[in-house]
Formats: sequence, structure tokens, C-alpha cells
Amino acid sequence: DRGVSVKFHQHLRYNPLRDSWVLVSAHRMKRPWAGQVEKPPEEHIPRHDPCNPLCPGNTRANGEVNPDYDSTFVFGNDFPALQPDAPDPGSNQHPLFQSKAARGVCKVMCFHPWSDITLPLMKKEEVVKVIDKWTELVEELGATYPWVQIFENKGAMMGCSNPHPHCQVWASNFLPNEPALSDRCQRAYYQKHGEPLLLQYAKQEAERKERVVVESSDWLAVVPYWATWPYQTLLLPRRHILRISDLRAEEREGLADIMKRLLTKYDNLFEVSFPYSMGWHGAPTGPYLKEDNSHWQLHAHYYPPLLRSASVKKFMVGYEMLAQEQRDLTPEQAAEKLRNLPEEHYKTREN
Amino acid sequence: DRGVSVKFHQHLRYNPLRDSWVLVSAHRMKRPWAGQVEKPPEEHIPRHDPCNPLCPGNTRANGEVNPDYDSTFVFGNDFPALQPDAPDPGSNQHPLFQSKAARGVCKVMCFHPWSDITLPLMKKEEVVKVIDKWTELVEELGATYPWVQIFENKGAMMGCSNPHPHCQVWASNFLPNEPALSDRCQRAYYQKHGEPLLLQYAKQEAERKERVVVESSDWLAVVPYWATWPYQTLLLPRRHILRISDLRAEEREGLADIMKRLLTKYDNLFEVSFPYSMGWHGAPTGPYLKEDNSHWQLHAHYYPPLLRSASVKKFMVGYEMLAQEQRDLTPEQAAEKLRNLPEEHYKTREN
Ligand SMILES: O=P(O)(O)O[C@H]1O[C@H](CO)[C@@H](O)[C@H](O)[C@H]1O
Ligand SMILES: O=P(O)(O)O[C@H]1O[C@H](CO)[C@@H](O)[C@H](O)[C@H]1O
Repeated sequence: DRGVSVKFHQHLRYNPLRDSWVLVSAHRMKRPWAGQVEKPPEEHIPRHDPCNPLCPGNTRANGEVNPDYDSTFVFGNDFPALQPDAPDPGSNQHPLFQSKAARGVCKVMCFHPWSDITLPLMKKEEVVKVIDKWTELVEELGATYPWVQIFENKGAMMGCSNPHPHCQVWASNFLPNEPALSDRCQRAYYQKHGEPLLLQYAKQEAERKERVVVESSDWLAVVPYWATWPYQTLLLPRRHILRISDLRAEEREGLADIMKRLLTKYDNLFEVSFPYSMGWHGAPTGPYLKEDNSHWQLHAHYYPPLLRSASVKKFMVGYEMLAQEQRDLTPEQAAEKLRNLPEEHYKTREN
Repeated sequence: DRGVSVKFHQHLRYNPLRDSWVLVSAHRMKRPWAGQVEKPPEEHIPRHDPCNPLCPGNTRANGEVNPDYDSTFVFGNDFPALQPDAPDPGSNQHPLFQSKAARGVCKVMCFHPWSDITLPLMKKEEVVKVIDKWTELVEELGATYPWVQIFENKGAMMGCSNPHPHCQVWASNFLPNEPALSDRCQRAYYQKHGEPLLLQYAKQEAERKERVVVESSDWLAVVPYWATWPYQTLLLPRRHILRISDLRAEEREGLADIMKRLLTKYDNLFEVSFPYSMGWHGAPTGPYLKEDNSHWQLHAHYYPPLLRSASVKKFMVGYEMLAQEQRDLTPEQAAEKLRNLPEEHYKTREN
């Protein structure tokens, strides 16, 4: 059988959301590793640290005092990459020296008042509160901004500089590269096949099963066929949904549940608080609210860097930066590993 | 003056080689850093380590014994991501599950018999030997393969697992994503403007001066207008040259010289052996040798991760992975810093 033999040899796979290819070299996991090992994440984080600017009641860099919040808490990033006012560089530019104004806002959102908790260990109702707040922010900022990027950098390995559970929301007056590319790809697919790309994809994966990690009546998490990061996943609704703000109450509950299940498996893989960057992509907002966005389907990408253990990550370096992304195990191998892990968190099992 | 005020506010810049945008937020360097700090690179590497598979005379993983080489040394990667034979997945695939055969070879090339030396500290004649060998490999592998990617991962931070000075050469039966994109962009520019993009760019930068790091009669190294990594540089010939194998003898000497100067500045920036991934892009080879590639111009990209010090790097994470690349200082600020550094290496100054 050709399909089977291909899996054990290097081959290319097509990413229809980015119109690009990934090199899959399953046999590379055999190579010994003598390179950099990462410090495992800190395990003993105090529940409340009087010096942590994200904790309830503490004072931030700009002198503002956080309220004594007991659920989520949103505030403006004290060092924003995007600000609402910025001069326009003007037109009449050389084609090789083109610039444009960038305007926007950057918010930080704490998930919980405690520093020593993470999403998989939070109560389902508490995760629902996080989703409700995401919805609110997308509605509020999306009223005018064309793109609202919700993202979470989890773990020091992913550039996160504060252990308190939080995410960020950056809204911009432009459609950034990645969503612009995804928009083009989803639109072209829709025009050709008459159905949203990711809706068809979810149906296929639910039938094929080999890349499914967790599923429920409303949601599906798979290691996508074109995954580049070792344990990358794609979280998809089964119904056609344009934006996070279009989720029904029971779909938000289902989302809290599947997020907890997925993230518990992630933590269980190497028995460590699993680092990742994640984020939501949905139909653009602001001026795009008036346009037809039927080609879009809401989804979340999880990009975790660990490859072999809690301390050995995948390096996306020379070949990946200059030529093409390359992975060292197949998406099916990764999905099988994650699927077979228990759904009880290793930390609650210990007690 | 608009041009000046833009520099101190966030704005977008266009990358004409990738048809994408980068978010430049100059003011972000002010933010304090409480995140991950990297272990500085090891400073005491033995000149010859009997256990290092890259040293002369040692035995490698596959049992082969390295010759007692005294210049460069090339061998087949013992754990290649690309092998010459791999089954063809066949056609008739679902549009969301497309794969292709990937075939090729992966070679490793040692720069020098000593483990405790790096390119900036090697003699100019020794660096010329490295360039000569690159030329040979591009000619040999490029005779049949459409793409020959020369790249160097330097430093543990960039996934390099062996301190011995070396690079890799991966040749493939396909044009990888990055060169395919660069090919499209250079072709479109050439068709519109009648001159190769990077030839026009080098002329502009030589006149504008503010992003130049080092230059000579044949070569130019700049922090490109659209740089994403903090101290990223682009190394360009001034003459129209398609491939590294088209360099004249004196241009290879000039290249050795400018590489030494650029890499010395890199090391001097934080007084540390500067980590980076670098690689060469030139016109495609194999079947493309028969086609018109006038739109191409040979160039090397240097992508170094360090941002603030020898131990604090830039993290390309959540926003960068999911939305758009973002930088924390302007390319002009970076170029000025590098330009003003001495051209004598801090290690030879000490003695
Ligand atoms: O081939 P090496 O040096 O073992 O591996 C290094 O370079 C490769 C090509 O960029 C990457 O895929 C690996 O993640 C990295 O560790
Ligand atoms: O905003 P933070 O958490 O300080 O910073 C982190 O996320 C940003 C957005 O992905 C990145 O640009 C930074 O490199 C990273 O350290």
C-alpha cells in the first residue's frame, strides 16, 4: 500500500490554509540529541506574589492599581506594540522602501486571580468566563478594527515573561500577513468547492480519525495533516461559525470542556506545564463586517515547541527559515501519542 | 519632517522579497525584561575533542572514520531529512490531503579542522576555501537538483548541536517555499521595472547609507529596510550575479573579507560568539539552468536572534506566528549600532 509506505519516508504535505508545503521526515526522530536543553518551567509559583504586576491588588508599571478581581481581568498593555495614534508615512514612496501607518491597541487579559493555576486546571465555569471575555473583546474592538488577534504565549520558552495565567489581545487597523493569507486561501477554496475549507476539513478528519486528538458533539481537535510543530493542533467547531462572538452559550461551554481536555493531554505528554503559543482566527471585523465572509470558519491554532521531552524542543532554524518547514515525526504519530494519553491531569492524579 | 517622526512611532514596512509586511515598534525596547535568559555560549571548547564526530580522524555514528583533513571537509549527514530515494505518494488526492515525493541529499561541511575557531577568526585564505567548497557543491548538486540550500545554524540557541564550525547543504528535487516565493517576487519586480530587484536595492542602499553595516568595492551588507530579526542583515554583491558559482576569484576573496568584517561586528556587539542562522539564495538550478533567470540576484540572509544582550533574545511567538512579524527597534538603529562597532575582534584585542 503506497499510503502506508509514504508515511515512513520523507515527503511533502500541502498546507491549504497557507498555500505552502511542509517537509515530513519521520525517520529523523532516531537522531541523537547533543544540543541545547531547556530549563523546565518553574513548578513552585506562589498563588499571590506582591511584586507581580498581574496579581489582584498590585500596582503596575504605570502606577495603576489592579482591582481585587476574582475572575478575568483586562487592562491596556503597559508597553504596547500598537497605539491608537501614529503618523501616516504618506504616499509617493520608492517601491523598495514602502511603509504604512499602523494603529491599534494591545490589551492583556488575566484568566484567573491565582498565579499558580493554568487553563487545564481551572474549573470549567472559570474557562467559560475566559471565553465570554474573548467574545466581548472581539465585539468591542472588532466594531472598528479589521483584525483582533487573541493570542497566548505560555511558558518562558515561548517568550512569556510572567507566570500568571494570561493572554493578549492586539487589535489593528490592518489585516496582518497571516490572516490575510488565510483569507485568500479560504476564499479561493470556497469559490472552487462551494463549501468552507475548514468545514469540509473537519468532516474529513472526523471520518478519517487518525489525526483526531479529542472530539465532542460541537468541537474537534486534530493534529492537522500539514502540521509543522511536532504536537501542533487545530481546534475546530463542527458547525459553520465565522467568529468567536457567534458561539452559542452551549458551544462556549463545549469549548471550555474541549480546551481543558486538550490542554490536559498536552501537560500529560511530558508531565510538565506544556509551553505553546496559541491564537484564534475568525472572519475579519470592522469594515469587513458588512462583507460576505462565508468562506471563513473560526479556528484556533496551537503551536507547542517541545519535541522529545520537557527540555528538548524543535528548532525552526536554518533550513526552516531559509527554505521550508521540516518536521521530525508524522502528524499521525503525534496525534496517536496525544490521543492515548489520559484525560486526568497528572497533577491531580498525584494527590 | 514626516520621515523622521514615523521612525519613532510604530509603522508597517513592506518586504518586497516575501510580499509581506513587518510591524516596526521602535518604542518597545523600553519595556523591562523579566522573561527567559539564555545560557551564554560555551567559551572553552577544546581544539580537538576525541568524542566529537566532526573532528579530523574521529569515527562518526555510522562507523566511518573522518580523514585527517586540514581545510574544509564534506560528508553525508548521518541523519538526513532528505534521501535520494523515497516512494511517490501518487496522484488522485483529496484537495485537503495533498502530498508529494521529496527526494534529495543532506551534506555537512566542516569549515576548519579546529573546533575552537569560527569564521570571523579564521584567516581570509581559509574562508576563501569555504567559499570555494560552497561553489563546488552548488555546481555538483545543482547539476540535477533544482534547489541547493547552503545554511549555517550557529550556536546552541539556533539548534546547533555541535560546536565545531560547520554548515549544511541540503539539495532537493523541489523548490522549497521560501525560494519559490522569492523567485515569484523577483520575477514580478523585474517584469515591472526592467532591472533585478536586489540590484536596484543595493544601489539605493549604497546611496542612502543609513542601513549599511559594511561595504567594499564588490559587496554590501545592510540591515534590510524590512528586517524582522533585530540585527538581521542581507549580504549582496554589487554586480548582477545569479549564483555563488558565478563569482570571480577576486569576488570570492572580497566575499571572504566582508564576511569576516560582518561577523566580527556581530561578535563585538555583545562580546559573545554571535548565534545566527544564515543561508544563501541564488537562481534555482537543475532544470532551471536552461531557463532565463535574469530576475535573480545572489544574496545571503543572516538571521541572528539576540535582542538586548548575550543572553536575551527576541521571541518570534504568539503575535508573530499568528498575525505578523514585529520588531522592537528600527533597522536604522540596528545598522547604526553595528556600523559603529570596531572591525577588530574582541578576542584578538584582549591579547
Ligand atoms: O541537522 P541538525 O543540525 O541536527 O538540526 C538542526 O537544523 C535543522 C535544519 O535547520 C533543524 O531541522 C533542526 O531542528 C536543528 O536542530
Ligand atoms: O508582549 P510580551 O509578552 O512582553 O512579549 C512576547 O510576545 C510578543 C508578541 O508575540 C513578542 O513580540 C515578544 O517577543 C514576546 O516576548
